[in-house]
Amino acid sequence: MSNASSEMQSCIDDCLACYRSCLSMATGHCLRMGGKHAEEQHLTHMHACAEICRTASHLMVIGSKHAPSVCAVCAEICEECAKECERVGDMDDCVAACRQSAESCRKMAA
Amino acid sequence: MSNASSEMQSCIDDCLACYRSCLSMATGHCLRMGGKHAEEQHLTHMHACAEICRTASHLMVIGSKHAPSVCAVCAEICEECAKECERVGDMDDCVAACRQSAESCRKMAA
Amino acid sequence: MSNASSEMQSCIDDCLACYRSCLSMATGHCLRMGGKHAEEQHLTHMHACAEICRTASHLMVIGSKHAPSVCAVCAEICEECAKECERVGDMDDCVAACRQSAESCRKMAA
Amino acid sequence: MSNASSEMQSCIDDCLACYRSCLSMATGHCLRMGGKHAEEQHLTHMHACAEICRTASHLMVIGSKHAPSVCAVCAEICEECAKECERVGDMDDCVAACRQSAESCRKMAA
Repeated sequence: MSNASSEMQSCIDDCLACYRSCLSMATGHCLRMGGKHAEEQHLTHMHACAEICRTASHLMVIGSKHAPSVCAVCAEICEECAKECERVGDMDDCVAACRQSAESCRKMAA
Repeated sequence: MSNASSEMQSCIDDCLACYRSCLSMATGHCLRMGGKHAEEQHLTHMHACAEICRTASHLMVIGSKHAPSVCAVCAEICEECAKECERVGDMDDCVAACRQSAESCRKMAA
Repeated sequence: MSNASSEMQSCIDDCLACYRSCLSMATGHCLRMGGKHAEEQHLTHMHACAEICRTASHLMVIGSKHAPSVCAVCAEICEECAKECERVGDMDDCVAACRQSAESCRKMAA
Repeated sequence: MSNASSEMQSCIDDCLACYRSCLSMATGHCLRMGGKHAEEQHLTHMHACAEICRTASHLMVIGSKHAPSVCAVCAEICEECAKECERVGDMDDCVAACRQSAESCRKMAA
């Protein structure tokens, strides 16, 4: 009944988990930490990652043939966000969510 | 570390599940069913419900003090979408997702 | 051909302008200013306002009967965001965008 | 003060105009026309185009370094949506909005 295969459903799960993690951190934890966590470059990364994950999910949910192209871009942004979060530190959960989403999106993009 | 309590996390889960169900049905199942399912009024309901659920989630994730007001509107729209889906029939999963989201949002709105 | 009257089109314009202003400031100007501008409370306000404006636009664009309820909440959030931006200062354009969006949404909500 | 150059501001304008056109048509005009206009494939195209335009705008507004990658995908989806709208016919305004958005996004992607 759904537009998405079970592998795609997992990718939607992972993208939405990453969206929640990045958005939550960028508007809470990172601002409270201050310093590197609250720099424009870092927060913009986090917001970009949240947004592209939200949209990759959307295209998969509607069953768009363009979902793979968006997942390819999403995988790149998530991977770079994971590295960026490792750089600033104290963001292990977010790093894990970004890595998981990147991995799932790479499979969808293939 | 998160901006949201565990009750709020459940509400975000329910809203995102309802978003996925309504959006998926409105762009797939309903169009394939045709008839009442594919009428403008029904599909607009579904898209409005998907969008407000997506946004109620967003405000909860960022820990906005306005989340309860948005959850109150979300509860109304979900409740009415559940009734609308019952009216057209063959949408049991979507009815359940809308009811669950409406109930969770009512608690957040209180 | 459109789902929205010309008054509603103006309201969509105003909401999208407010969305752009709040989101742009919250991820740029405010972070660069630091101090009160970069506090969690202020930035969460800005992000909440951006998101509800984006969604009020969405419901008007699709011609939802629920657009007035969402516009009512949007008017409240925009009004409060305008006050919040006045409080921190150096945000005149954003104050104006929030006021304009609040006024248009109040008309739609009526 | 803004995160975006004036050329980028025009691209945001064009993407948001395309978002409004595609979303409005997909939930109104196309459903009322029926036939080819109301087929799943066509409507999914329209919704995918609306969503990617909304998100390309978002990344430009926040000044993300990933905006060019998203604009590149957006240009492809808009171009194909324009062709799809020409195929079904009676969608001249939407074709124009998609073409304009595709052209602006290609410049940003370069």
